[in-house]
Amino acid sequence: MLEIALFGAGRIGQIHARNIAARDDTRLRYVIDVDSPSAARLAAATGATVVSPDVALADPSVRAIIIASSTDTHAELIQAGARAGKVMFCEKPLDLDVDRAAQSLAVVRDTGVLLALGFNRRYDPSFHRLKRDILAGKVGKVEVVSIVSRDPSPPPLAYIDRSGGLFRDMMIHDFDMARWLLGEEPVTVYARGGALVDAAIGAANDIDTAVVILETATGKLCQITNSRRCAYGYDQRIEVFGSAGLVRADNMTATSVETADAGGFRREPALPFFLERYAAAYRQELDEFIKALRGEAAELASGEDGRRALLLANAAQESLRRGVPVQIGI
Amino acid sequence: MLEIALFGAGRIGQIHARNIAARDDTRLRYVIDVDSPSAARLAAATGATVVSPDVALADPSVRAIIIASSTDTHAELIQAGARAGKVMFCEKPLDLDVDRAAQSLAVVRDTGVLLALGFNRRYDPSFHRLKRDILAGKVGKVEVVSIVSRDPSPPPLAYIDRSGGLFRDMMIHDFDMARWLLGEEPVTVYARGGALVDAAIGAANDIDTAVVILETATGKLCQITNSRRCAYGYDQRIEVFGSAGLVRADNMTATSVETADAGGFRREPALPFFLERYAAAYRQELDEFIKALRGEAAELASGEDGRRALLLANAAQESLRRGVPVQIGI
Amino acid sequence: MLEIALFGAGRIGQIHARNIAARDDTRLRYVIDVDSPSAARLAAATGATVVSPDVALADPSVRAIIIASSTDTHAELIQAGARAGKVMFCEKPLDLDVDRAAQSLAVVRDTGVLLALGFNRRYDPSFHRLKRDILAGKVGKVEVVSIVSRDPSPPPLAYIDRSGGLFRDMMIHDFDMARWLLGEEPVTVYARGGALVDAAIGAANDIDTAVVILETATGKLCQITNSRRCAYGYDQRIEVFGSAGLVRADNMTATSVETADAGGFRREPALPFFLERYAAAYRQELDEFIKALRGEAAELASGEDGRRALLLANAAQESLRRGVPVQIGI
Amino acid sequence: MLEIALFGAGRIGQIHARNIAARDDTRLRYVIDVDSPSAARLAAATGATVVSPDVALADPSVRAIIIASSTDTHAELIQAGARAGKVMFCEKPLDLDVDRAAQSLAVVRDTGVLLALGFNRRYDPSFHRLKRDILAGKVGKVEVVSIVSRDPSPPPLAYIDRSGGLFRDMMIHDFDMARWLLGEEPVTVYARGGALVDAAIGAANDIDTAVVILETATGKLCQITNSRRCAYGYDQRIEVFGSAGLVRADNMTATSVETADAGGFRREPALPFFLERYAAAYRQELDEFIKALRGEAAELASGEDGRRALLLANAAQESLRRGVPVQIGI
Repeated sequence: MLEIALFGAGRIGQIHARNIAARDDTRLRYVIDVDSPSAARLAAATGATVVSPDVALADPSVRAIIIASSTDTHAELIQAGARAGKVMFCEKPLDLDVDRAAQSLAVVRDTGVLLALGFNRRYDPSFHRLKRDILAGKVGKVEVVSIVSRDPSPPPLAYIDRSGGLFRDMMIHDFDMARWLLGEEPVTVYARGGALVDAAIGAANDIDTAVVILETATGKLCQITNSRRCAYGYDQRIEVFGSAGLVRADNMTATSVETADAGGFRREPALPFFLERYAAAYRQELDEFIKALRGEAAELASGEDGRRALLLANAAQESLRRGVPVQIGI
Repeated sequence: MLEIALFGAGRIGQIHARNIAARDDTRLRYVIDVDSPSAARLAAATGATVVSPDVALADPSVRAIIIASSTDTHAELIQAGARAGKVMFCEKPLDLDVDRAAQSLAVVRDTGVLLALGFNRRYDPSFHRLKRDILAGKVGKVEVVSIVSRDPSPPPLAYIDRSGGLFRDMMIHDFDMARWLLGEEPVTVYARGGALVDAAIGAANDIDTAVVILETATGKLCQITNSRRCAYGYDQRIEVFGSAGLVRADNMTATSVETADAGGFRREPALPFFLERYAAAYRQELDEFIKALRGEAAELASGEDGRRALLLANAAQESLRRGVPVQIGI
Repeated sequence: MLEIALFGAGRIGQIHARNIAARDDTRLRYVIDVDSPSAARLAAATGATVVSPDVALADPSVRAIIIASSTDTHAELIQAGARAGKVMFCEKPLDLDVDRAAQSLAVVRDTGVLLALGFNRRYDPSFHRLKRDILAGKVGKVEVVSIVSRDPSPPPLAYIDRSGGLFRDMMIHDFDMARWLLGEEPVTVYARGGALVDAAIGAANDIDTAVVILETATGKLCQITNSRRCAYGYDQRIEVFGSAGLVRADNMTATSVETADAGGFRREPALPFFLERYAAAYRQELDEFIKALRGEAAELASGEDGRRALLLANAAQESLRRGVPVQIGI
Repeated sequence: MLEIALFGAGRIGQIHARNIAARDDTRLRYVIDVDSPSAARLAAATGATVVSPDVALADPSVRAIIIASSTDTHAELIQAGARAGKVMFCEKPLDLDVDRAAQSLAVVRDTGVLLALGFNRRYDPSFHRLKRDILAGKVGKVEVVSIVSRDPSPPPLAYIDRSGGLFRDMMIHDFDMARWLLGEEPVTVYARGGALVDAAIGAANDIDTAVVILETATGKLCQITNSRRCAYGYDQRIEVFGSAGLVRADNMTATSVETADAGGFRREPALPFFLERYAAAYRQELDEFIKALRGEAAELASGEDGRRALLLANAAQESLRRGVPVQIGI
């Protein structure tokens, strides 16, 4: 039985907690959260104990930690976890500051522990199949990747304020998808966007709508479009176009029902948000993490993947600000 | 330039007239219809002349005739046309009476002329491709054919009265599809149905809704469902299930537009009726007829196909009346 | 914590056992199976104990039993369970003999216990939505229900022999769907079919391919087609056609991936079989059963639903044998 | 009968010639082409006469001219036609040089004749419905337009050389679509691309793959992707995303046939190229032109639309060359 400590009892933390509880081979030992009632509720529901970070990290029976607390705590927890010799899984982003992120990764490297990054979309059955189809040569040489990612509605302004902005909070997932599917590092990014959904988001110095072009050194191209509002569900689609054809992953729906009347044929909206769309992805992500913990071969996004996505997000932010394409740092 | 005489200036006659006019190699010479104004209008629009049947049949420059007049005139015109040595195309059904139909076919056989039957669906690009896929072995051995055929709305009661009933007027097309796609003759038919759409149709001793099962001597099965009302357009679908898989033809739409909002995704209804759905089929049907006229290889439904479909319709009618499955005559 | 005893550690029993184990409010207390190793394995995996039927039924802490053992044990277990005052969930069919089924239901009625029947498809999210759409009037007055149900491949001949035949083993699900969706009792059934997939099934006096027509007293119609072989997955589709339109539930797939190349566009096959297609349905079915156990409102198929479906299956069998439509008993 | 003269007997000229011939109210009087055999063949097929440009322009019975000759002849013919008082329809682009284009438009303005531009996609039934849906408010306020346009295979290198490059030859259609659907003028363009399909195209100083971002003054965004090669047909898709939802137009296919086997479900490729995909659009385009000729209300792309699209193409070309976003001229 693998004992795991969970930092963060919020929305994502709860997903991980439930998935740990549902497995035969894992046990959620500790829940840590500054919000005591949340921690207590989640611990009670899963048979875990609420403790302080120090207790969790000091307990040698805890093999692994999952960091799903707020972004500003990630760097410190990663470094402490690494020094405590824990295998770690951290939600994105590593940090809003790329230097601090790099510093965390240096500690991880020095201690030799495993750090996996929570880019959940890599584990979605449809996107995973997309990736395998590319690797199997079904589209030939990849030429253009197109990513659509639209949230159903904007988060609260309070969240916007501490989110690091659309590129680091939301499009960072798409930057990871882009790198993963292109199979090459983008070298330039150009970003345009604005607050088309809610002027208050603009007043908070953020945007809610964006389009981006990435280009790799060999000339492969990627288009990304994001919106913080989408009337018809959580719009998560990817198309990969190559020399031999196309592979794409469409949205998923809860049922396969279609009705027809004088107004035509109707299907239901896309699954409402990430809890529903990526339910299987979160289970699979945990599964890969457990495999890695056991020393088995596993497909995991790494800390370096987290840093690279952050570099892209920062460059996109700079491109938006300056109105020109920006070279990606290394 | 092939000169053609057209009997019947109604809805179907007008389709043929326009298709003849649009070709470089055919000319509509004569239009014949008891409804003089209709005949005059159609003749004026196509450069044809209104004449009596005798004149058209006596003119040696007329190589072919198209019979699109009312059903009760078919037998006489076929026989007269055959005796005049014309190549003939006749709309379904041959006749409401199978003996009279057989008598017409005997005259055709004796005179050695070609008689093609207007089972337009055989020439629909989708159904034609379905047939070719079956012949190419894409479904392996055919096991079950399922046919859906629904008109958008019932015809006028006056039409119902002289139509010969749903099986001979409407389902006769599906019986032809069934024979064509099964590749074998059905030996039994079982039919159920009623006036679910309009009680007045029931009062006129007809039905507006029906389901039928056909079985061939080797045990292949066919399901047919018909309705005289369909809210979402002209519903024309076929599925052929075999040992190796399925091939199906869905409805067609005028555009590929889809809209999405909080209510989900919407596509437009199916094409409204046969003029739209089978526009290409009518052109292709004429094309095959012209090929045959020229002595080239052509795929045409024959007079015998018309008689066979009529036998199935009559057996279905008897099955409905008696409440038992009925053997198909030969 | 609701304590449950499970009779039958086979494929379906294992589904129920896992679903019971995954809930917070239920506990699998006992597993009973004549196949001791299967029972032991399942008990070990779920923390249950292997006991004899008598022990399970005699334990007052066991509130409910789930009967997923072989069909020939259902009647005896239902009667014993009813007399022991257990709330019961029984897999279909109740019995192969309608009189024995009726006898079991009489005992259930006398003892006043709840008996739910395992018609899992009623709980499938797509079919459940179909039913709600009908109740919401989206198709107007129901006129024709069309059900397609195809297994990926035939069961072993040994299973065929004791299955009671295609109608009682396989199509019984579709008969239940038909009753549920028509909202009326069928009064006649006509069935055709044969051994088109495997002659050995024919030699065993069963069929592997069938088409059926049902009709209700008010003239509503239902078509069903079954095959024991389907190349492209587990084909589970329903269309309900009514005065105002159509509602249909299509197959489900594991991913939303589509590839395109010179050969066209390709999507993956339907989910392979019932374990995958009805995974959510089995969970929802248990959920409804637990609700009923707690005295909450629940949508459950009843013992009488099981008997009615059996009557339809028997009538279909007789229709096939005699070659005529058969009236349904009451 | 409206008499029309056609300049250019190539691929597009032939489409127009056939469409003119198929109408009851138009007559193709003259065909003009430097390639005499082509002109002779097309004239013979349509009952027209081959003449020199002067003869055609001098004939007062000729009300309208269609300019479908090579791009370098457009400016001169437009000016000559305008001076001859002809109503004109000119294929895109107006010219490769925006100043020469403006000069032609000035002559048109001075003479007061009508000049329509051949942006055929505006008349495609699907894109036309898209536009109407936007105008009807189905997506709310337009935020992001995404256009996919991929040719099945690159044109000959000789054509590439005189084409003016991908932006002026191919993407110019998408620039027109963007303006038309955004309902506002783009003010900046950023373009990336390369010769990913064929290095010889790169050696000829052109590209075969491109992605572009346009932005309007109010912050509306447009993504365009082009490729000169597409394995699965002529890929012509548009999505318009707005505050209230999405409207999109997918590719069209020749049939609605789908096959299913162990490898899954297959549909045919998109229609192969513009002759097939835009057959209806070319007919509708002519129809609108004839309406305008008659003084009826007509929806036509204007000469100014042609100039605006050319400005966008030139700016995209400059953006690609300089690697920065470029402001659009006025």
